Amino acid sequence: MFEDKNSEKTNISDLGEFGLIEHLTQKIKLHHKSTVLGVGDDAAVISGDASVLTVVTTDMLVEGVHFDLGYMPLKHLGYKAVMVNLSDVFAMNAKANQITVSIAVSNRFPVEAIDELYAGIKTACEFYKVDLIGGDTTTSPTGLIISITALGTVDPKEVVYRSGAKDTDLLVVSGDLGAAYLGLQVLEREKQVFQVNPNAQPDLEPYSYLVERQLKPEARKDIVQLLKDLEVQPTSMIDISDGLSSEIIHLCKSSKVGCQLFEDKIPLDPQVISTCEEFNMDSTTIALSGGEDYELLFTVKVEDYPKIKGNPNLTVIGHMTQEQEGIHLITRAQTKIPIVARGWNSFE
Amino acid sequence: MFEDKNSEKTNISDLGEFGLIEHLTQKIKLHHKSTVLGVGDDAAVISGDASVLTVVTTDMLVEGVHFDLGYMPLKHLGYKAVMVNLSDVFAMNAKANQITVSIAVSNRFPVEAIDELYAGIKTACEFYKVDLIGGDTTTSPTGLIISITALGTVDPKEVVYRSGAKDTDLLVVSGDLGAAYLGLQVLEREKQVFQVNPNAQPDLEPYSYLVERQLKPEARKDIVQLLKDLEVQPTSMIDISDGLSSEIIHLCKSSKVGCQLFEDKIPLDPQVISTCEEFNMDSTTIALSGGEDYELLFTVKVEDYPKIKGNPNLTVIGHMTQEQEGIHLITRAQTKIPIVARGWNSFE
Repeated sequence: MFEDKNSEKTNISDLGEFGLIEHLTQKIKLHHKSTVLGVGDDAAVISGDASVLTVVTTDMLVEGVHFDLGYMPLKHLGYKAVMVNLSDVFAMNAKANQITVSIAVSNRFPVEAIDELYAGIKTACEFYKVDLIGGDTTTSPTGLIISITALGTVDPKEVVYRSGAKDTDLLVVSGDLGAAYLGLQVLEREKQVFQVNPNAQPDLEPYSYLVERQLKPEARKDIVQLLKDLEVQPTSMIDISDGLSSEIIHLCKSSKVGCQLFEDKIPLDPQVISTCEEFNMDSTTIALSGGEDYELLFTVKVEDYPKIKGNPNLTVIGHMTQEQEGIHLITRAQTKIPIVARGWNSFE
Repeated sequence: MFEDKNSEKTNISDLGEFGLIEHLTQKIKLHHKSTVLGVGDDAAVISGDASVLTVVTTDMLVEGVHFDLGYMPLKHLGYKAVMVNLSDVFAMNAKANQITVSIAVSNRFPVEAIDELYAGIKTACEFYKVDLIGGDTTTSPTGLIISITALGTVDPKEVVYRSGAKDTDLLVVSGDLGAAYLGLQVLEREKQVFQVNPNAQPDLEPYSYLVERQLKPEARKDIVQLLKDLEVQPTSMIDISDGLSSEIIHLCKSSKVGCQLFEDKIPLDPQVISTCEEFNMDSTTIALSGGEDYELLFTVKVEDYPKIKGNPNLTVIGHMTQEQEGIHLITRAQTKIPIVARGWNSFE
């Protein structure tokens, strides 16, 4: 991204901390009347509303752990960092309203690089109609760290926890699974090819969907609205950040139920199937453990089935059971395998 | 702190990310009815209240930039990290209610070290009656990063911004200034002595107040209450994290006023004066630029002067002026020097 030797580079120290904050936060557009005061004081101020609950979630992304700037453009990274947090807000069946953004950044980044990161952050704020209301900007001895906190609101009658699933509910997922993880594998492979032969021209066309799912995922705000339109109130919900298997286990443990997941129901994009064949990987394993799909996984009452049946955005992939029956995958061969969490874990 | 070779050390990877979160967040006590749901779902949930404003602030502390584990015990660090954020909440004249805590930590830290950090965080939560409602825990390639977001509430009639000072208001500061910065200098010196001679026994007794102000600062929740009790509504307020000079400039710029600060009024602890002599430093410079005092700097109407006069916690250090008169220090010799920001700036 910064190969152009003629492009301007400004050292962050030329601006200083306050100068950088001023530079980054100028021309911030606010969308919500509830945002009384954004950036510029000791704290941001939000108006109170007794008719809603406030939801608060936070996520930290660390260079070398959650992203590799070798193939993740900074603008995409900024967008994704916001999106990852909004996904958690939507998983509460809530509206996202505000975010704070803190970054620690080493001196190797010029101001223009931070501008790119913030361009992505601001694009996400614009697209999801979220107000950037505060944050912190500091130096880091090495690498880039982004910590975002998102605030949202939800009608108390509509809030959805992980803990509300009943043993007869259906298990539903939005979109399709496994693509983001495979996108990462494709990018890792291309990076290695590039290291051996810098003149190699990668053909990413056959993997376009996978790469997009990795570099520019979208949080499923639309699914929250769709469920409202369909008059479906999920009984429990979680977003898929770490992989289907570990999210199912979270729902089951929180709700004290078991689950039967049907392998043949797991929604997969054709590119996932063909790339799994090429990489000699099992597509079910990828869907179960891949992570970063940012789809919504939720349960609905059986009587709501007619409302979601045939909807192209939603797939019934299983059903809940009594707790003592355990958590199982029913394979295509009709064998029953216990599901264990093998999703993303940054400490492994 | 971890010199005892017999003490138990558990690798974080033995617990994994979810295990670590479970371990750290067990037995968390909640103090506020408004905290509907704390740790354990995609987001925390807080009840709404139309009679208050919500304030939100966030701060990030980076190892090697904001703290040195060579002399900062992890428990103190956890305490201070919370405190730094609450100080911003109090600077809005608000009550602090909830925090989220995200940490990125390298594998060189055993679980027992993270426990120490969290012991400090939980002690601060207990002391300030703040609920720990969520966060994120991840690995870092190097070092420790702590990102905290604090939420508070304030009556709309009582919220205080940086922007409300009028040109006739008095400038007031709580406590005394410069001690935290000098405490850091003392600790840095002891660290260097220790590196040369590991058997040297430091005598920190003459610097006890300075070291405590650096290692265990307190946010001035008591001053917010005191002002309420005195029936004084500040017209503007900010907390002193970066040094008096840069905070005065923030108040003046936000409020579009000037200021006269009187050198002989700046409150200094006797240890600050004696240690400045020993270190051959100018105490006024230290107070103006030292930072990390976490005192409150605010303005009050002249007619409120009788209410604060003689209060041992509060010192009138100057008065605001019309904007075009500029921002000046009036020295003991009655000369007038423009105040420039030379406070803490992590990018310098």
